[in-house]
Amino acid sequence: MLDAEAALAVAEARAGLIPPDAAKTIADCCDADRFDPEGIGREGRAAGNPVVPLVRSLTAAVPGEAARHVHKGATSQDIVDTAAMLVARRVLGLILIEIDGVAGACARLADTHRATIMAGRTLLQQALPITFGLKAAGWLVAVLEARRRLLTVRESGLAAQLGGAAGTLASLGPDGLRVLSEFAQELGLAEPVVPWHTARLRIAELGSFLALAAGVLNKLALDIILLAQTEIAEVTEPSDGGSSTLPHKRNPVLATTTVACARRVPSLAQTLQAAMAQEHERAAGAWHAEWETLSDALALTGGAAAATREALEGLQVHPERMRANLDATESLLLAERVTTIVAGRLGRLEAHELVEAAARRAAAGGRSFRDELLAEPALREVLSRGEIDAALDPAQYLGSAEAFVDRALDLYRREVPA
Amino acid sequence: MLDAEAALAVAEARAGLIPPDAAKTIADCCDADRFDPEGIGREGRAAGNPVVPLVRSLTAAVPGEAARHVHKGATSQDIVDTAAMLVARRVLGLILIEIDGVAGACARLADTHRATIMAGRTLLQQALPITFGLKAAGWLVAVLEARRRLLTVRESGLAAQLGGAAGTLASLGPDGLRVLSEFAQELGLAEPVVPWHTARLRIAELGSFLALAAGVLNKLALDIILLAQTEIAEVTEPSDGGSSTLPHKRNPVLATTTVACARRVPSLAQTLQAAMAQEHERAAGAWHAEWETLSDALALTGGAAAATREALEGLQVHPERMRANLDATESLLLAERVTTIVAGRLGRLEAHELVEAAARRAAAGGRSFRDELLAEPALREVLSRGEIDAALDPAQYLGSAEAFVDRALDLYRREVPA
Amino acid sequence: MLDAEAALAVAEARAGLIPPDAAKTIADCCDADRFDPEGIGREGRAAGNPVVPLVRSLTAAVPGEAARHVHKGATSQDIVDTAAMLVARRVLGLILIEIDGVAGACARLADTHRATIMAGRTLLQQALPITFGLKAAGWLVAVLEARRRLLTVRESGLAAQLGGAAGTLASLGPDGLRVLSEFAQELGLAEPVVPWHTARLRIAELGSFLALAAGVLNKLALDIILLAQTEIAEVTEPSDGGSSTLPHKRNPVLATTTVACARRVPSLAQTLQAAMAQEHERAAGAWHAEWETLSDALALTGGAAAATREALEGLQVHPERMRANLDATESLLLAERVTTIVAGRLGRLEAHELVEAAARRAAAGGRSFRDELLAEPALREVLSRGEIDAALDPAQYLGSAEAFVDRALDLYRREVPA
Amino acid sequence: MLDAEAALAVAEARAGLIPPDAAKTIADCCDADRFDPEGIGREGRAAGNPVVPLVRSLTAAVPGEAARHVHKGATSQDIVDTAAMLVARRVLGLILIEIDGVAGACARLADTHRATIMAGRTLLQQALPITFGLKAAGWLVAVLEARRRLLTVRESGLAAQLGGAAGTLASLGPDGLRVLSEFAQELGLAEPVVPWHTARLRIAELGSFLALAAGVLNKLALDIILLAQTEIAEVTEPSDGGSSTLPHKRNPVLATTTVACARRVPSLAQTLQAAMAQEHERAAGAWHAEWETLSDALALTGGAAAATREALEGLQVHPERMRANLDATESLLLAERVTTIVAGRLGRLEAHELVEAAARRAAAGGRSFRDELLAEPALREVLSRGEIDAALDPAQYLGSAEAFVDRALDLYRREVPA
Repeated sequence: MLDAEAALAVAEARAGLIPPDAAKTIADCCDADRFDPEGIGREGRAAGNPVVPLVRSLTAAVPGEAARHVHKGATSQDIVDTAAMLVARRVLGLILIEIDGVAGACARLADTHRATIMAGRTLLQQALPITFGLKAAGWLVAVLEARRRLLTVRESGLAAQLGGAAGTLASLGPDGLRVLSEFAQELGLAEPVVPWHTARLRIAELGSFLALAAGVLNKLALDIILLAQTEIAEVTEPSDGGSSTLPHKRNPVLATTTVACARRVPSLAQTLQAAMAQEHERAAGAWHAEWETLSDALALTGGAAAATREALEGLQVHPERMRANLDATESLLLAERVTTIVAGRLGRLEAHELVEAAARRAAAGGRSFRDELLAEPALREVLSRGEIDAALDPAQYLGSAEAFVDRALDLYRREVPA
Repeated sequence: MLDAEAALAVAEARAGLIPPDAAKTIADCCDADRFDPEGIGREGRAAGNPVVPLVRSLTAAVPGEAARHVHKGATSQDIVDTAAMLVARRVLGLILIEIDGVAGACARLADTHRATIMAGRTLLQQALPITFGLKAAGWLVAVLEARRRLLTVRESGLAAQLGGAAGTLASLGPDGLRVLSEFAQELGLAEPVVPWHTARLRIAELGSFLALAAGVLNKLALDIILLAQTEIAEVTEPSDGGSSTLPHKRNPVLATTTVACARRVPSLAQTLQAAMAQEHERAAGAWHAEWETLSDALALTGGAAAATREALEGLQVHPERMRANLDATESLLLAERVTTIVAGRLGRLEAHELVEAAARRAAAGGRSFRDELLAEPALREVLSRGEIDAALDPAQYLGSAEAFVDRALDLYRREVPA
Repeated sequence: MLDAEAALAVAEARAGLIPPDAAKTIADCCDADRFDPEGIGREGRAAGNPVVPLVRSLTAAVPGEAARHVHKGATSQDIVDTAAMLVARRVLGLILIEIDGVAGACARLADTHRATIMAGRTLLQQALPITFGLKAAGWLVAVLEARRRLLTVRESGLAAQLGGAAGTLASLGPDGLRVLSEFAQELGLAEPVVPWHTARLRIAELGSFLALAAGVLNKLALDIILLAQTEIAEVTEPSDGGSSTLPHKRNPVLATTTVACARRVPSLAQTLQAAMAQEHERAAGAWHAEWETLSDALALTGGAAAATREALEGLQVHPERMRANLDATESLLLAERVTTIVAGRLGRLEAHELVEAAARRAAAGGRSFRDELLAEPALREVLSRGEIDAALDPAQYLGSAEAFVDRALDLYRREVPA
Repeated sequence: MLDAEAALAVAEARAGLIPPDAAKTIADCCDADRFDPEGIGREGRAAGNPVVPLVRSLTAAVPGEAARHVHKGATSQDIVDTAAMLVARRVLGLILIEIDGVAGACARLADTHRATIMAGRTLLQQALPITFGLKAAGWLVAVLEARRRLLTVRESGLAAQLGGAAGTLASLGPDGLRVLSEFAQELGLAEPVVPWHTARLRIAELGSFLALAAGVLNKLALDIILLAQTEIAEVTEPSDGGSSTLPHKRNPVLATTTVACARRVPSLAQTLQAAMAQEHERAAGAWHAEWETLSDALALTGGAAAATREALEGLQVHPERMRANLDATESLLLAERVTTIVAGRLGRLEAHELVEAAARRAAAGGRSFRDELLAEPALREVLSRGEIDAALDPAQYLGSAEAFVDRALDLYRREVPA
């Protein structure tokens, strides 16, 4: 808020509205260490916002004639909204550092594990073989999508706010637009077409993009938690989350932290979106509801990104467990492949029925799926033993997995500077 | 969904995977009128999605050998997700027509009423004079911001989905990428870098942008409802919403309809954002939760846009009521202006205190604000009677209002083709 | 809505406001089959609610003098709100049938599997042995808690609405309270202390209780999905959810359906809670936003309950897999027990450290946990081989599991009539 | 959390599991001032929760042998959940003090203003006369409904948590239930039937009830804001919310604060409801997402209640403005009454049409509504001039308003002890 007050004085001096010396004096006083945030917060309750006591303190702190020019032409919301943009810019920078780390870790995993075969799982059932590299490539592309939104919003979605008491800049007389322009430039924020005191798309979009980023991180963390299950054990988190009573456990504490943070962001984004319904030229409550909500959304997204990064950068991957889990279903996973081959000879429906029946008999116990296939006369008519063996080799049934990994890595290299 | 199945066959024919004749036969059968949506819906419950019975019906409907090639290489989610994108594209087109109507109406109001003076209101209290043109310009810029998001998502946010059972396109062998590319091109959708079965930013972003658009419309409708209050009566909705029992009322039915629709969209967007936490290669429930939620979000945003457009296109504006409401506060509104002038001579804090005291005395009854100012010796020392009269004329205290209107209209002309 | 109109006429006849014959004639005409819901819906848009065209249709349908007495003294919201209560009562009845089925199935599972040992899992890591009976008992108690809320709301949370145009019942003259009382009694709804046109706790609480019930069902379904994972395979859903391409999969389709429904209800409840902010004597939009939202919440909770019931009533439980998964961690799970015993002799911190170290060495490979314990001199000083073997038997470390099962079943028998 | 640890030791001593002296020593050490919350918070990140470092600190602080018995048999979640219940109880007590103040203020307003006539407003249009007493009575009943939920949850909805590592209390051997019972009793919390580590209805219900209370407060505050509008001015808030630039404004700062707080609670309740989907015996993230969310919901509801109380206790009511606003519509408001009288003679539809036409002509300007009625021959045939004058007196058309006020005050006296 003090940065906004300082920039306002500077802008007004440039526009010739106040003496340059006064602007300099005001700007020099805009030093957070000189002020009492708790006291300002307490007094702000009665005033309805913290700018009233802040301006009072600032005016008292500015020596001489310059004090007259403090906060000239601005309304409280000009300062709070501009400050929110400055805070968002700083925090987005921190979040993006973590997101870049997450993307980098995903890229390394995708590259390293492009040939690490594992089970692809749909509805948490083993479906078809994939590679861990493909899974990481999917994470990577999702992270890059979120990254792009956060970059966009940081670079062009943050605008200065300056409208004065009712959005006309009336008390700046004919110089309003000039001051607005200088003010935005001084702060490195976009200059809005009109004041946006009750046009809150900017805030709600920022919240929504944070929710999208949190959603991407939540998905990654959920996959880590599921892969780290005792019975699956395909990955282990780097840090050993000790439990208070169970010495042997390897809790996925970082992924859990990610989920804990990320789950909360969509509801906060919802609050911001719903708060767009603001009355006339300044809202009675909906605007005020944005303040902590946006701060929380920024902090939680950052927390989720940092924990995910830490989890991924030190992730222990266990290719042998991946293979063992895949083999445990004794090729049942490749039923689709057999179906596809048979479908080319008998039609899809009949192929589906025959293979499904064999799979069911195998799953019910007794013989392996391979043996069940070999024992089905209708299948043996169209399929040789060699074809069956080839069909049941997962390494030969990865389709475009590696090509997808390459596409993801290409995108990463294009979008994230080394 | 049938459009997706047809495009899949065409793409596979182009990639040389199935005979062109078969593709043509399949595409010809993909005619919604031939199918029983209710039956498919019912059967879809047991299967977990409607594609299973749809493919069964379609295969049965396709004559001869071509039937073998139906749905080749695709998984149910490929069809449902691609269909969702096609539906979104169509509905976004409809929504954008209404949004354009809203923007056009705002632009006309901004232009027509650039000099119509009214009270600007903050926290629902009269604050400073503005123009109705400025208010409409604020609406306009907000609508254009929402419009830009919807255009962006329609033009580049809608992607084809094709990954097969676990996202590897395994059953298409070496031709997976070729088919994916042809499939996307045939449908006019973007080609994704990798399948996005559990990378749902696309869906959640679409929902978020709908919530942003709904939020903008909600703000407009709220302003209309507030301006249409019996005691304010500055605007009247075109259609007379009759009430069941009260013959004289002029209910703002259209704005009410907008609010009713728009209030619901942020929660739906929240559901979509929260549903981004999808397990492995296909989610067990979170994906399915998207279906109706996205449809509802599209329908409600469209409903809000249509009602707002109807309200604005026939809005009756009452400039004389605007002026009367402004005059009712007897210039108290211009206290800020007096403060500003006095501040230049006595300093902000002292000016604020003197003018506030005069305003309070006026508000408490007895004399007018003008008379109270004239009666305050400390003020009369620095302010002449003529200066006081000029300071209290609202038409002379509109600041950059008209310039802001021009900036909004410029933006409108640049962004919305005539 | 027709039931409400009929009851209104009957109540007014009892209060002597309209002739008994007229009430009978009106009630006879209140037959849904005679009306055109689609037409009424369409016309309702212009009116702002469907009661206006409904009353028009009903008045036209009522022969003779009785037509004069249709809808006497009521406002549209009286009819819509009362109708919502009647719909809620019917649907709550249906939901409770399913919930009772879920509770019954949980009770059977708790009783049958009171001695079926399995791994308890925290943060999805095996923690300590529990029984499947205890897990089902936990489900049962949660279901009973939700059931109690739904029963309460059905029995005392549903109230008639009758206030007339502004909540004074003015057009009923001195008989307002008498009519209100008769109206509520005729419908079997509670009589409100005052009209609740803009006091919406009732609606928001109903939505919240549906969200609580959905939350309980979501937890059950999530456990089923996790237990049904290919690698865990401790339960299998009754119906075999076929997949479009993978013949061998056993998708947990019912639990997935539960999750798909249940995930959406909290956001709907949020919409209803947020819609409590209603203006003056009737809201402009917030009330209207409740209509479909409440319907959806009722339908989705019912859908979730029905799918959960179906999943549980036919659930295949695999005790041998439960035991095998538990044994796979080679007693590491019982580290806590060893810690506890050792703690009594060496203090908690030292015990924790020694046992944790042994567990870590075992997890790292090589020897079993038992062997590591035996090899640690500091432990052997305070622990005999026999004590170690006893400590590592899961069946001897179930604590109060069975007692908890009994407590849950007692509660079930007390609360749910056989 | 320290209170929970202390109570655990006491309960275990009573059950004979640890020496009474040790329990006393532990309890004496459980003094918050001795611990470093910030350090514990920081260390808690790595552990996944703050109990791990807290127990470490506590064990270090407990002298001698007693240290061995710290945290015996408990898991981290037992302590966090129990602590949440204790915090909730304390904060609910504070909230209820404010709620009682709100209810008391509403009761006084209802009683004082039982005859203060004002306009009832639907869709923000004047509809029919009501009294300010009736409006306050509606607020009162809504507040009492919310109060009842908060009392219920405080008295029976808060339960102790004690289950040990997987909910079996295994490490307490055969004494688990005894300890649980003593633990609950020592803390004055309900004893749960089974541990509720992943059965979170209790937490989600608490959040929902807070949202319901916030919703009630939001409605009150919204009415205050609307009534305080410059053009309506029927009430003024006690504290004068000064604005930074506008000395004359009387901002409804307290009601705005209420709205700002209350708007956020439903989204928090949504987070808690959605977090009910917790895995197995302890969730990986959903549980952790509850912590701050519940704290925020408690704090915001308390903040909303305190601000509303302050607003209502000093509310300035302006009966003369209420009457003036009502009179400004020149009896148009009483069109319904005329309709009702005429309906008894000509039928509802014809009456509605005739009166509506007269109202429209009056609203369009020229003659008053009374004159329009007198000038309509079809009306004059069935209505005398005297009847028209009586029909247009608002004081004679308040229906059951006063009786409703009495019912509300009766309820208040029954439920809230003087």
